[in-house]
Amino acid sequence: MSKLVKEKKNIIVMKFGGTSVSNTDKIKKAADRVIKTKLSGCNVVVAVSAMGGSTDDLINIAKKIDKNPSCREMDMIMSTGEQVSIALLSIAIKMKGHDCMSLTGSQAGILTDGTHSNAKILNINKERILRELANNKIVVVAGFQGVTSKGEITTLGRGGSDTTAVALASVLDAKYCEIYTDVDGVYTTDPNIDSNSNKIEMMSYDEMLEFAASGAKVLHLRAVEFAKKHSIVLHIRSSFNDIEGTWVMNIENKDERMEKPIISGVIYDKDQIKISVFDLPDKPGVAAKLFRELAAADVNVDLIVQSVGAGNISTISLTVKSEYVSSAKKVLENLREKLGIKKIEIDPGVAKVSIIGAGMQTHSGVAAKMFKCLGDKDINIEMISTSPIRISCVVRKNTIKKAVKALHIGFGLDKSVK
Amino acid sequence: MSKLVKEKKNIIVMKFGGTSVSNTDKIKKAADRVIKTKLSGCNVVVAVSAMGGSTDDLINIAKKIDKNPSCREMDMIMSTGEQVSIALLSIAIKMKGHDCMSLTGSQAGILTDGTHSNAKILNINKERILRELANNKIVVVAGFQGVTSKGEITTLGRGGSDTTAVALASVLDAKYCEIYTDVDGVYTTDPNIDSNSNKIEMMSYDEMLEFAASGAKVLHLRAVEFAKKHSIVLHIRSSFNDIEGTWVMNIENKDERMEKPIISGVIYDKDQIKISVFDLPDKPGVAAKLFRELAAADVNVDLIVQSVGAGNISTISLTVKSEYVSSAKKVLENLREKLGIKKIEIDPGVAKVSIIGAGMQTHSGVAAKMFKCLGDKDINIEMISTSPIRISCVVRKNTIKKAVKALHIGFGLDKSVK
Repeated sequence: MSKLVKEKKNIIVMKFGGTSVSNTDKIKKAADRVIKTKLSGCNVVVAVSAMGGSTDDLINIAKKIDKNPSCREMDMIMSTGEQVSIALLSIAIKMKGHDCMSLTGSQAGILTDGTHSNAKILNINKERILRELANNKIVVVAGFQGVTSKGEITTLGRGGSDTTAVALASVLDAKYCEIYTDVDGVYTTDPNIDSNSNKIEMMSYDEMLEFAASGAKVLHLRAVEFAKKHSIVLHIRSSFNDIEGTWVMNIENKDERMEKPIISGVIYDKDQIKISVFDLPDKPGVAAKLFRELAAADVNVDLIVQSVGAGNISTISLTVKSEYVSSAKKVLENLREKLGIKKIEIDPGVAKVSIIGAGMQTHSGVAAKMFKCLGDKDINIEMISTSPIRISCVVRKNTIKKAVKALHIGFGLDKSVK
Repeated sequence: MSKLVKEKKNIIVMKFGGTSVSNTDKIKKAADRVIKTKLSGCNVVVAVSAMGGSTDDLINIAKKIDKNPSCREMDMIMSTGEQVSIALLSIAIKMKGHDCMSLTGSQAGILTDGTHSNAKILNINKERILRELANNKIVVVAGFQGVTSKGEITTLGRGGSDTTAVALASVLDAKYCEIYTDVDGVYTTDPNIDSNSNKIEMMSYDEMLEFAASGAKVLHLRAVEFAKKHSIVLHIRSSFNDIEGTWVMNIENKDERMEKPIISGVIYDKDQIKISVFDLPDKPGVAAKLFRELAAADVNVDLIVQSVGAGNISTISLTVKSEYVSSAKKVLENLREKLGIKKIEIDPGVAKVSIIGAGMQTHSGVAAKMFKCLGDKDINIEMISTSPIRISCVVRKNTIKKAVKALHIGFGLDKSVK
């Protein structure tokens, strides 16, 4: 990898998630890894999540007092989780004879806006971290949390620790950011569906975005977006072994991937509900009105297909995650009379399968090959959507495993094929 | 009480200990109390301890990693306990419709020195608290913790939350400081020994210091010293009922207590070890040398009695708490040859009983009465020590209960006597 990594400051950011520090043994192992990196001659900044499940009890107590507790107070409670894990990891590192400094989000200068429970990082005042590094210390920073300019404690919301790590790597101009997790990296598909799935060695930010958006739990979407924006090289790898994981970066050097299959993975999402709106008048503004209202109700629409039938009436089908169904239904029922909708059909029996590949646009026949793979297995395609690096098909939920496996083998991603 | 309370700012500081916020029900009850005080027309600042036992697990995890973890990291961990309890209490107060602001030690401006795990409060930047009070908010401050001028999180050591409360009352010029605990106030003696013990309505700081030093757990010595120094009126009372507790203040108006017994209570300490050093040469500097060496080894000596026998040799007896015995023994053994000590005797079979009373000095016959009470019960006195407000006798440990009860009745403190 090293030739692809630009010459940056000799700093590496290492991020350990909750499963990597969930007990004393794992904390000690994480400490070993940190020390190993330090001994390789790098300056090390660590971002840590709370120990898995550590604040659950506290959240339950808060909700026993008030079902909807104030976000500010919940941030006060939640942030204690990382405050504990940074201290424990620091104790473990010091125990092994290395100088170390734990810093809360506030102490590390992680400045956020004031949106409690879902704050955005505005800036990192890196002076304190740089001072500690200059004193040859390993710096352990609390992930997921920050502080406003008024001294209020905030948390970053889901995937917050990943975002902390990537933001630290950015302001510190780190060589790369290592994300330690409980899997070896990103796989060509879910090993539970095809045990012959392969680890992806390298991918672009856009590909990683598709994997993250599809619910692959290795890295949060927001952190990938941040990494892309600031060109932070990511290395997603296991806390439990030394195997090289998956690198995510700007793939400028196309040669590196020349012999790789252009499709990097097959992903799927079973949490898809298909909503069909029948007999809409096919005239300007109708579809716009419909989607504007859905957006106003915060309904996140995934795939959209519109088909125009005879007599200038059209049918719109869309998919949403199950959490949005009731809001979507309410919006559509309200529009029923206004737009002249005949029928609304909710179909929970669907799932989405997608193939991801950065080179897809320049290679013709990829879509055709996908449809053939599915057709050969008698899998009916109900909806299709494409992007420059992804083709998604909505199929019956009970065929999704078969579909994933067929595509995984069909595009040569399967170990048995290689 | 009100006529004794000087006209100060209309602020009351309320302190809740760990047993008063140890579960959701207790937190809700504490919230009710805070709101009641607020509704009486006062500005309220609350100091809260961690929920009883909440950080024990975390301390154990830290000690599993390193038996002697860094004090800085332990402060990082320990301080999360109060961070949680202030948030939970604030959620409970807000739930009941009152505006509230929780503040960590750092946010509340509690500035300490850098002695981790046993920091001293240097100053409180009260601007934030005053601003929140001006906005009609109840302010809930984390006890036991502070921050250094460099932004390091510190804890105050034992009794720290009491100290926080008293320090807040001092800088805010509060009317008084209420200490909520699991007992109704300070009693004339341990109700476990004499069920007829009475609650003391009012006492001086010096009396309270004697009670606190004797191990009465209602209030920490350090907080009482602070209150005395800054003349903070204290009200020690129960979290679980509305009964008036014990007031601690400068007792300027002697009339208030004219009809009260001059002895306010009988206290005892079973953790006493008597050390006798036999046949010391009775010449200048010998005793000084001995106690200088003990002090240098951080041995806290309680009572001292020196008796001079025939031939210019003396015997020194002293008592220490059990934690100091091994250090004391080591010091004395080292001095044995140098000072010509014949024998060192360690006697764990003793206990100390004391009577406390502010007016003691001006009333003759108190000591004589004490000795008679004990003599009447065939209790032998082995050592005696006096201060302006206290007389202590060392007796056999197995007679201590009898001694306490005899003195409690003898000085008219017993309910059955009144």
